[in-house]
Amino acid sequence: MSKQRQLIAAVDMGSSSFRMIVARVEELNGQSQIYIIDTLREPVRLGAGLNAQKYLDDASQERALGALSRFGERLRSFKPGEVRAVATNAVRVARNAVEFIGKAEAALGFPIDVISGVEEARLVYCGVAHQLPIGQGKRLVVDIGGGSTEFIIGEDYEPEAMESLYIGCVSTAQQYFADGSISPRAMKNAVMAARKEVAVLRRQMLDMGWTHAIGSSGTARALAEICVSNGFTQHGMSAEGLHLIREHVSAAGHLDNITLEGLKVDRLPMMPGGLAVMSAVFEELEIEHMDVTDGALRQGLLYDMLGRQHNEDMREITVAQFLHRYKIDSKHAGKVKVLAELLFKQLMKQLPELKEQLPMLHWAAMLHEIGLSIGHNGHHKHAAYILSNADMPGFSKREQQLLSTWVLAHNGKLGKVSDLANTAVHWAAPMCLRLAALFLRRREVEALPELKVKLLEQGIQMSVPKNWLITHPLTQYSLETEVEQWQRIGLQLELLTRR
Amino acid sequence: MSKQRQLIAAVDMGSSSFRMIVARVEELNGQSQIYIIDTLREPVRLGAGLNAQKYLDDASQERALGALSRFGERLRSFKPGEVRAVATNAVRVARNAVEFIGKAEAALGFPIDVISGVEEARLVYCGVAHQLPIGQGKRLVVDIGGGSTEFIIGEDYEPEAMESLYIGCVSTAQQYFADGSISPRAMKNAVMAARKEVAVLRRQMLDMGWTHAIGSSGTARALAEICVSNGFTQHGMSAEGLHLIREHVSAAGHLDNITLEGLKVDRLPMMPGGLAVMSAVFEELEIEHMDVTDGALRQGLLYDMLGRQHNEDMREITVAQFLHRYKIDSKHAGKVKVLAELLFKQLMKQLPELKEQLPMLHWAAMLHEIGLSIGHNGHHKHAAYILSNADMPGFSKREQQLLSTWVLAHNGKLGKVSDLANTAVHWAAPMCLRLAALFLRRREVEALPELKVKLLEQGIQMSVPKNWLITHPLTQYSLETEVEQWQRIGLQLELLTRR
Repeated sequence: MSKQRQLIAAVDMGSSSFRMIVARVEELNGQSQIYIIDTLREPVRLGAGLNAQKYLDDASQERALGALSRFGERLRSFKPGEVRAVATNAVRVARNAVEFIGKAEAALGFPIDVISGVEEARLVYCGVAHQLPIGQGKRLVVDIGGGSTEFIIGEDYEPEAMESLYIGCVSTAQQYFADGSISPRAMKNAVMAARKEVAVLRRQMLDMGWTHAIGSSGTARALAEICVSNGFTQHGMSAEGLHLIREHVSAAGHLDNITLEGLKVDRLPMMPGGLAVMSAVFEELEIEHMDVTDGALRQGLLYDMLGRQHNEDMREITVAQFLHRYKIDSKHAGKVKVLAELLFKQLMKQLPELKEQLPMLHWAAMLHEIGLSIGHNGHHKHAAYILSNADMPGFSKREQQLLSTWVLAHNGKLGKVSDLANTAVHWAAPMCLRLAALFLRRREVEALPELKVKLLEQGIQMSVPKNWLITHPLTQYSLETEVEQWQRIGLQLELLTRR
Repeated sequence: MSKQRQLIAAVDMGSSSFRMIVARVEELNGQSQIYIIDTLREPVRLGAGLNAQKYLDDASQERALGALSRFGERLRSFKPGEVRAVATNAVRVARNAVEFIGKAEAALGFPIDVISGVEEARLVYCGVAHQLPIGQGKRLVVDIGGGSTEFIIGEDYEPEAMESLYIGCVSTAQQYFADGSISPRAMKNAVMAARKEVAVLRRQMLDMGWTHAIGSSGTARALAEICVSNGFTQHGMSAEGLHLIREHVSAAGHLDNITLEGLKVDRLPMMPGGLAVMSAVFEELEIEHMDVTDGALRQGLLYDMLGRQHNEDMREITVAQFLHRYKIDSKHAGKVKVLAELLFKQLMKQLPELKEQLPMLHWAAMLHEIGLSIGHNGHHKHAAYILSNADMPGFSKREQQLLSTWVLAHNGKLGKVSDLANTAVHWAAPMCLRLAALFLRRREVEALPELKVKLLEQGIQMSVPKNWLITHPLTQYSLETEVEQWQRIGLQLELLTRR
């Protein structure tokens, strides 16, 4: 990677539109600066393609794949690690997400991360923080998306509270203003339903307080544009301005009758839904004025990529926090990590593509005993629950699922993770973690012998010094029973002894 | 309840035998003393009735019900609250446990609590601590049962570490010495399998250390008896003595050939399994000598009952610890508790039997936000997971399940708890919690109006002052949507307004 100039790109597969930005990174006095050189937008409206059973329909998938293949064309000269693509709420809730993401990655030519609402909040804040001056006190950032809305309170570059709620402009429009019809009663119900959700954050947010409120999504920009165009405000939007817009929209009867200065045609279908959610946010959080900013999530993605390149990976911070919060024995976890990596690196020599899993193996090993916080018996199952459900800033949904599966496989019967036994890319890392945990089960302080491992067609060959094994009959017994366990999911553990 | 003399009874439905003790409680200078006046034992061997699919077979159920009805006869003059009956591992793991417990409660005439392994460990320690002098330093207590073994390190009356492992004398006998045949190899494998389990506790236990090791189960007493009868030790059992017993048993070839001085016939079938587990405990925990004590669990039950009568309910302590450990907003939880109880007490006037649920409602309210420790979205589901899986000293499995279900029902859709809509005894408490959470959703500081509730045939009628509702449109909206939610599971929420 060149130290001086580098191109990076971020793709944001939102519920209303897909956007891509390409930026040039320049190093100046050890600081990285980002200059945006290209932006693309496609009005995919993926969220509107979610049917009542929460499946993305064919038409919306086609629109999405078309947009992604056009983005992919622009990215053809980019290398892995220079592009980060994320999908948010529409894919998060879709029942056919896995199948869709497979096709989407093929169209784009890069991996796509589905991210949680709280992770989205973190990235939004990161993007906003880099667009605003520092030293201005606390700010509240609200990002109303198609199907979820993120709330962040933070100061300078540090988010202090991050929340995500399942309310959005597309989902609200579908539920209350289907077919484009609008009534004062429907608008009132839409606002109330959104207020009911925002209400759970009200006390916490008001108690933390803020000096500025910032809206960072298309909904916020569209409403601010109307406020300014109609002379309701000088900049941004006001509670009074929103009220006037709401009166006009409620009385319109139908989308087609909305004639507000400053409203762009392509925002029209989502506008009443976005208006209802924004009104709810203003009322519950007692906001009088909100300014707007641009393209938060995708800019946040760019800065997050920079961080990962500069050893400021948010995932490292999350793992460190979890070690503390869940009172994990980090000394033991560290030993398991070292041994698991030692084994894994031997396998990497035969299959170099394993290398990219090394950080994930590291984190899985550090967190593999997290379930002890709930209880001892079956703690690997509790760990799997926590890792797949907890808010883990920096991690995508897929990464959390991977950690969860690997940690589930580290102990007990293997039947529950039989789908690991696909190719070495699937089982190499978790099986190294499992072997490391086995050798360190007694938490002894003594040094282990040199363990040599090698990839087999469908399994691992392991060689252990004979003399050591004789003096460690419990480990020998455990390894022998392990051979049977592996067989049950079609994997071979071949044990060799050497002098 | 008489202050001077009172009879209490404890029933221990163990995996090998069922036992009951009846004791007289005497108050002396404000201290309660327990004098055992009657003990009953029936060799039910419930654990041996667990088939490969983990169902309790008919024969073992019949033996159990017969024993319980005989116990029940002895308890006929006892009132609820004077008898505590618990079932341990055999019922804990049985797939038909719910059905069996129903019949067992009918036979005994009192409720039966299935308890977790860690709760069993706590009660065992409580029983042991009350039988030994205080001020003797740390002790390790090992209770080898039919299907699980409990390990506790504690000093005086305070347990410091409590663990439970799925190894026991009956399950080991079934797996390694089926049909009574014994070989040196089978014995070695049985010991190794048990050592593999004990190994996970080794480091923690050795690091904590202890001055005396105590065995508190039938297995420990039987082995000590053999050691003493054969002159291997003066009292208790020694590593050397166990080794000699193991040599004899391994070489016997079959149960019938075991001819050890001091071995009682009724212990014979479980003896090789118990010997294997005890040997594993001695080896992994490096024990040289272990003394034995009597009837730990059932004595612990008696002292625990005394504690509950004297406002030293372990469940209170657990809830207080969880508030701290899971960083629950206890101020808000306390408000929800007060309101939920206020509503519930109104319903109690119509249905007095609800009263016994009051402590459970209290705890459910205090813990209803425990899931926020994992994540905000769907936190009621995380709470349900934690409450049904965590080690919660003092709570039975059924109580944990109840807390879990009530907390799951406090928010979101009700479809997932549709089985609550049985009788008022099932839904009154969780619906009061749900209403309390609804009214306090915004965490406002202002006082609430007087809320009047009344039981309907299948639901609740609630009256709210009209003026208050007009000035709180969000609560009004929430109550209206609540009516629909209740309807979905066949419950009626009738809203009235009054001046």
